[in-house]
Amino acid sequence: MRPAQVLFTYLHLAASRALAEELLARRIVAIAYETVQLADGTLPLVVPMSEVAGRLSIQAGATSLEMIAGGKGILLPGVSGVRRGRVTIIGAGIVGLNACVVGVGFGADVTIVDINPLRLAYVRDVVQGPVTTLMSNAANIEEAVSEADLVICAVLIPGAKTPRLVTRRHLRQMKDGSALVDVAVDQGGCAETSRPTTHHDPRYVEEGVVHYCVSNMPGAVPHTSTYALTNARMAYALEIANRGWRDAARDPALAAGVHVVDGCVTHPTVAEAHGLDYAPLERL
Amino acid sequence: MRPAQVLFTYLHLAASRALAEELLARRIVAIAYETVQLADGTLPLVVPMSEVAGRLSIQAGATSLEMIAGGKGILLPGVSGVRRGRVTIIGAGIVGLNACVVGVGFGADVTIVDINPLRLAYVRDVVQGPVTTLMSNAANIEEAVSEADLVICAVLIPGAKTPRLVTRRHLRQMKDGSALVDVAVDQGGCAETSRPTTHHDPRYVEEGVVHYCVSNMPGAVPHTSTYALTNARMAYALEIANRGWRDAARDPALAAGVHVVDGCVTHPTVAEAHGLDYAPLERL
Amino acid sequence: MRPAQVLFTYLHLAASRALAEELLARRIVAIAYETVQLADGTLPLVVPMSEVAGRLSIQAGATSLEMIAGGKGILLPGVSGVRRGRVTIIGAGIVGLNACVVGVGFGADVTIVDINPLRLAYVRDVVQGPVTTLMSNAANIEEAVSEADLVICAVLIPGAKTPRLVTRRHLRQMKDGSALVDVAVDQGGCAETSRPTTHHDPRYVEEGVVHYCVSNMPGAVPHTSTYALTNARMAYALEIANRGWRDAARDPALAAGVHVVDGCVTHPTVAEAHGLDYAPLERL
Amino acid sequence: MRPAQVLFTYLHLAASRALAEELLARRIVAIAYETVQLADGTLPLVVPMSEVAGRLSIQAGATSLEMIAGGKGILLPGVSGVRRGRVTIIGAGIVGLNACVVGVGFGADVTIVDINPLRLAYVRDVVQGPVTTLMSNAANIEEAVSEADLVICAVLIPGAKTPRLVTRRHLRQMKDGSALVDVAVDQGGCAETSRPTTHHDPRYVEEGVVHYCVSNMPGAVPHTSTYALTNARMAYALEIANRGWRDAARDPALAAGVHVVDGCVTHPTVAEAHGLDYAPLERL
Amino acid sequence: MRPAQVLFTYLHLAASRALAEELLARRIVAIAYETVQLADGTLPLVVPMSEVAGRLSIQAGATSLEMIAGGKGILLPGVSGVRRGRVTIIGAGIVGLNACVVGVGFGADVTIVDINPLRLAYVRDVVQGPVTTLMSNAANIEEAVSEADLVICAVLIPGAKTPRLVTRRHLRQMKDGSALVDVAVDQGGCAETSRPTTHHDPRYVEEGVVHYCVSNMPGAVPHTSTYALTNARMAYALEIANRGWRDAARDPALAAGVHVVDGCVTHPTVAEAHGLDYAPLERL
Amino acid sequence: MRPAQVLFTYLHLAASRALAEELLARRIVAIAYETVQLADGTLPLVVPMSEVAGRLSIQAGATSLEMIAGGKGILLPGVSGVRRGRVTIIGAGIVGLNACVVGVGFGADVTIVDINPLRLAYVRDVVQGPVTTLMSNAANIEEAVSEADLVICAVLIPGAKTPRLVTRRHLRQMKDGSALVDVAVDQGGCAETSRPTTHHDPRYVEEGVVHYCVSNMPGAVPHTSTYALTNARMAYALEIANRGWRDAARDPALAAGVHVVDGCVTHPTVAEAHGLDYAPLERL
Repeated sequence: MRPAQVLFTYLHLAASRALAEELLARRIVAIAYETVQLADGTLPLVVPMSEVAGRLSIQAGATSLEMIAGGKGILLPGVSGVRRGRVTIIGAGIVGLNACVVGVGFGADVTIVDINPLRLAYVRDVVQGPVTTLMSNAANIEEAVSEADLVICAVLIPGAKTPRLVTRRHLRQMKDGSALVDVAVDQGGCAETSRPTTHHDPRYVEEGVVHYCVSNMPGAVPHTSTYALTNARMAYALEIANRGWRDAARDPALAAGVHVVDGCVTHPTVAEAHGLDYAPLERL
Repeated sequence: MRPAQVLFTYLHLAASRALAEELLARRIVAIAYETVQLADGTLPLVVPMSEVAGRLSIQAGATSLEMIAGGKGILLPGVSGVRRGRVTIIGAGIVGLNACVVGVGFGADVTIVDINPLRLAYVRDVVQGPVTTLMSNAANIEEAVSEADLVICAVLIPGAKTPRLVTRRHLRQMKDGSALVDVAVDQGGCAETSRPTTHHDPRYVEEGVVHYCVSNMPGAVPHTSTYALTNARMAYALEIANRGWRDAARDPALAAGVHVVDGCVTHPTVAEAHGLDYAPLERL
Repeated sequence: MRPAQVLFTYLHLAASRALAEELLARRIVAIAYETVQLADGTLPLVVPMSEVAGRLSIQAGATSLEMIAGGKGILLPGVSGVRRGRVTIIGAGIVGLNACVVGVGFGADVTIVDINPLRLAYVRDVVQGPVTTLMSNAANIEEAVSEADLVICAVLIPGAKTPRLVTRRHLRQMKDGSALVDVAVDQGGCAETSRPTTHHDPRYVEEGVVHYCVSNMPGAVPHTSTYALTNARMAYALEIANRGWRDAARDPALAAGVHVVDGCVTHPTVAEAHGLDYAPLERL
Repeated sequence: MRPAQVLFTYLHLAASRALAEELLARRIVAIAYETVQLADGTLPLVVPMSEVAGRLSIQAGATSLEMIAGGKGILLPGVSGVRRGRVTIIGAGIVGLNACVVGVGFGADVTIVDINPLRLAYVRDVVQGPVTTLMSNAANIEEAVSEADLVICAVLIPGAKTPRLVTRRHLRQMKDGSALVDVAVDQGGCAETSRPTTHHDPRYVEEGVVHYCVSNMPGAVPHTSTYALTNARMAYALEIANRGWRDAARDPALAAGVHVVDGCVTHPTVAEAHGLDYAPLERL
Repeated sequence: MRPAQVLFTYLHLAASRALAEELLARRIVAIAYETVQLADGTLPLVVPMSEVAGRLSIQAGATSLEMIAGGKGILLPGVSGVRRGRVTIIGAGIVGLNACVVGVGFGADVTIVDINPLRLAYVRDVVQGPVTTLMSNAANIEEAVSEADLVICAVLIPGAKTPRLVTRRHLRQMKDGSALVDVAVDQGGCAETSRPTTHHDPRYVEEGVVHYCVSNMPGAVPHTSTYALTNARMAYALEIANRGWRDAARDPALAAGVHVVDGCVTHPTVAEAHGLDYAPLERL
Repeated sequence: MRPAQVLFTYLHLAASRALAEELLARRIVAIAYETVQLADGTLPLVVPMSEVAGRLSIQAGATSLEMIAGGKGILLPGVSGVRRGRVTIIGAGIVGLNACVVGVGFGADVTIVDINPLRLAYVRDVVQGPVTTLMSNAANIEEAVSEADLVICAVLIPGAKTPRLVTRRHLRQMKDGSALVDVAVDQGGCAETSRPTTHHDPRYVEEGVVHYCVSNMPGAVPHTSTYALTNARMAYALEIANRGWRDAARDPALAAGVHVVDGCVTHPTVAEAHGLDYAPLERL
């Protein structure tokens, strides 16, 4: 890559000093998908991957409950006369809402936990079928996790390490052969026992619970994921291509994604992560 | 009443020898709503009251959970961030299906138990929203009752005493302030602790559980009940009025309801109940 | 209570000069739940009680229609072949939306009235089942009330007296034994005939209409209500406890709840209500 | 056509002596779709056309309410803040159920009337959304028709003239510009004011009510109708072609459709309609 | 009309210089419904007409598919065993969402296309039944249009000419007898082949596709439309009447609608359209 | 096993002469689950496994579409702006209905094919969301298979080899990476390319299509399956245990399951399969 070339993709520079230094050295203009942000806080280039991961988590979890995967051998929707599986979703953001919609539609008995009662009210408004909403606190998480057949960890805090809400002690209270899908494993995971796995070897058992912790879940369905991401990024890419990145970055949403310009770090979190100087974009 | 006059109403003669003897002595033609029966076993003059009682049972149960009634003070549909109440319905006949539809619509977390898996499959087919169906057996009843906030007893066996499926031991496992509505109390009740109450004093607490055991539940909503019953009986009444009871009773459905004719008992169960002679209708 | 102690609860000081004076005299820091307010106008510590009251209102109304309560004896969801009850909900805020969701789920024939067509559009978007939405104006209210079996008054204007939208004349047009639940009775009530009642004696009949006007409806289900309220207030309480009230009140949402500090009235409405001086918080 | 040739189509011989005589004279084997009948009474070659007509009736009725058609100018689903249209469907057979499903989905406020409470219970079970079911009797029909914006007449009694359930008096109670779709107009119509119309001139106004009375409603959507009918008749046609009609008619369902064989009338209703001799098929 | 008189209605001055000049000459105060605008961009006096048109578009399209209208003769909801019709809706604003809700409820197989993935997510959240959402781009529009039986053009860009998203080439790929409803025909239409028609002669066929392009669709159902519009405008009208237009226009929403005052053009788009001077309202 | 001992399980004797001879030689009383049959044709001990397999088939198919399994990498429910996957289910019996309910709930675009329009009507009645039903014939199967991302083969003809409805030619028309789940593989499979696989190696690719053809699908979820089967068989087992098999077999449903008694073959199909004498049970 040559100087002043524009790199527009997922970057995660705060986690990789080597990559950051290389981009600085080569004087690349690096714009990170993951921090492009609308005025209301929405991350438009993260949302599509969250939708995919949330919907996929039910499928990954259902499969983890099969006996061949080490699971307890239950079918999430149950059948006539046999209990449905219980799914506990921690976090009611984009990932959690999408897991909830698919889980309820699939026929599971779903509980969703979040720290924001107003968000839980929206979930109740739109999910088509009864769902249990629960305030996120230590007691509720412990109870909802321990009675679940499947736990979906769907807590993602933009730009921060995921809090470890599900502990080893919680897992010991679950029945053997239960399952846990940690959608947040990329950002540290929200279960104490989570560690990243791959699509080739997606599961491991710890504390008797089958863990599905693939770091790049949307990679399981690249056809859907690519279209979803392209839908979201195309408008920004066209703006950059047609008007040049500097003009395009007059849109504050895109400006929030500019991490490195002409050898300077233009994003405070990246600067802070590596102890580098922070050069506000508007001053360059 | 004079001889040969036709009495067409609910009779329950097996339970009242005095009434039976009076009808015999006065040579009344007594036709009982509760045994009129179609070829497929449907009791068309019992169905409307079962629909009313089933739907009403959720309302009666929800109210029984209010603190003022001695209940634990929970709201069946919960609210955002707070658990929904758990309702266990025992029996998936007309009463149970109607309780289930209303309970799910109301927002409760409903489990329905029945001895017939095919009937449970139909319930799952038609109830609009996820519902847990469970085979009726001792273990399932114990578990489903003990974790319920509200138990609806909806087992009615035509012409027989209701089996005592819910025992005192089950109730002790429920949390204090839980509730039980016994729709079958008229026929003996399906809980060991059930005894008939009235609309004026509908509830009592036993083993910490609020019991709602009004014998004639549809009497709470006479407007709806009367229309429902009239809808069902009108066609039979017109046939009796227009063609005479004997001609009308060529319809085997109606014939099954004829209990007493010209001083003879024409229904085997009634005859057996009181040790009287049984005179088949077709021989009179 | 001693000076500088923080009181964080529902206060309603504008309605009680005695309480206001006591708090001023004792130099209490009094923060009122009911005026904590987010930037978009949401009252996060009022919402949970509104959800409870809205959902409960259907149950309270359904029971009021039973004959024993003086009602016309109809079952809201009807049964096969018999009309469903008609419910008119006035106001489509949190109370109204929750009443609407539960009412439609319960099987009633629901009409909801509001002054804001965009809010009605949201109600139509999310309520799962057909519902009639109606613009709030004199003609529509009159028609919708007069044809209702059950009227739910769900108009709450924060910090203001509820307008008397339902008049005695409207009630005279309703059929005898109809019912009215006035969720707004605490703030004056939105029916001309409403007067506060208690859980022990919740109903009275006026103009032939059964009134359920319990002032503190959520008190019927304290278990659910307490959890709901705790969910919402916990974060604020922790902030106050951990950082001190003054630091916590840098959050404008919480600041909007501070009514009395160090013998000064810091909320304009309270000051105005009692002719006291108003000392803006930011100047103290 | 030559003797012994098989004619397998809709025939309606009871209504046309000329056609019957021609078939007899030419010694045709005439098998009528409309009386092929399964053991449970289902008419498998009438059902598809009833589905089409029932679903189409909502579309025909909605259009009839447009101002250009003479209607009152309302939109059946209403909009936010404006009432939905009221639809009354008379008859809950195949036509009525299909009209009901589409009408409720379309967003109208639907009431369905039938003489059989058990059928109404099935309608309530399966229609996805609240619907009012009403027993068919003079009072209910009068009330439900008079308050409707759109009446769908969906009463079809196989092989008999449709009863005139909707009278001129009823129509006078409807508001001007209301509409009526008479799906039964082919069999005489179930409204006193119905007379057959064509797709080219489908509507007329009488008593202020827009009548849509096209005799062959499925002809509006021949693509869908042809596929639907072919689906149902293909198996019978193949049986006749492969095994010969006589062998195929060992299936009692098909035998019930044989009207004329070798110059004899083999269906009692046809024989009776024209005063001809009846020759039971099994004796030929 | 006399000077200083207030005219409050739909104006579309940018499209009519004659009208603009007349209003200027007569010194009318002209306030246009179509540019009254809330802070979040909502056009409160356009929304009601968009709801009506969106809902009506399914009805207009379904009718256009009837054979008598030149359509291919299919029924949108299909019947048992026969495909449902495919509907493609271009644009997921108010018009598109309302068309989608009604189309899905009606039983069609609906695809909705929009340029905003977050809006599509909302549509998926609230539409009750599976719906396909698709990003708006050339490939998707071509595919979705060519496989549709019915295309609803629902793209309306406030104050701008509608982009021609559906081309003649697209239409040639549709099957003969397909249909297209262009709700945007008033603003130029979003199909290359659209030209305005009237309620008296609403359809024409071009490229084998039945076009329904009535310019004033809500005029088909004036009863519903008038109520809907009145609901929205009444509050503004009352403010103008009670407080005078100048005082009322302190509400920036209403101010955005003021086009002509005292012989001056106070709306920039109108001024620009006719090359007139623009006099900001706040300076008058 | 000793003579006269009762063996009550799945037997499939027609497929295994060795087993049949052994049972005959040892004079076992062998009662086969798979032919116990109610009067209406229902196989009560097959239904539970069909429910499990039908529901599981969506999960197995969704996983087969993941890239790691060789699939095209799509997510069945799609996401906002990206198409849903298309599922074609062949057969609308217990397996097909259950696959359909779960598939629609999961968010897929589902088409279900069957030979019986009345069964398809029931499916439409009860599935909660729009579903395309299609008559089973060569043209429809070809079209529905070729446009599907996932084909579920759900045709099971009791006691007969499954017809090969899906041919190699059909598969070649599907896109590469599509998937096929053959629930009928145990009985020969309904795709030409199906061959039995195991839970350890469940998939193979042929003609570019990922095949999931596990012979004993319910074995994936043994917990759910065992409960489901036990629910259904318990009543029969108790009857046999309490009353002896001969007395229990007075129930014609159970009698239909008796295959071998005292060295005689008592089931005609088994006798015919192996050229053995058939001894009707009622003569023994």
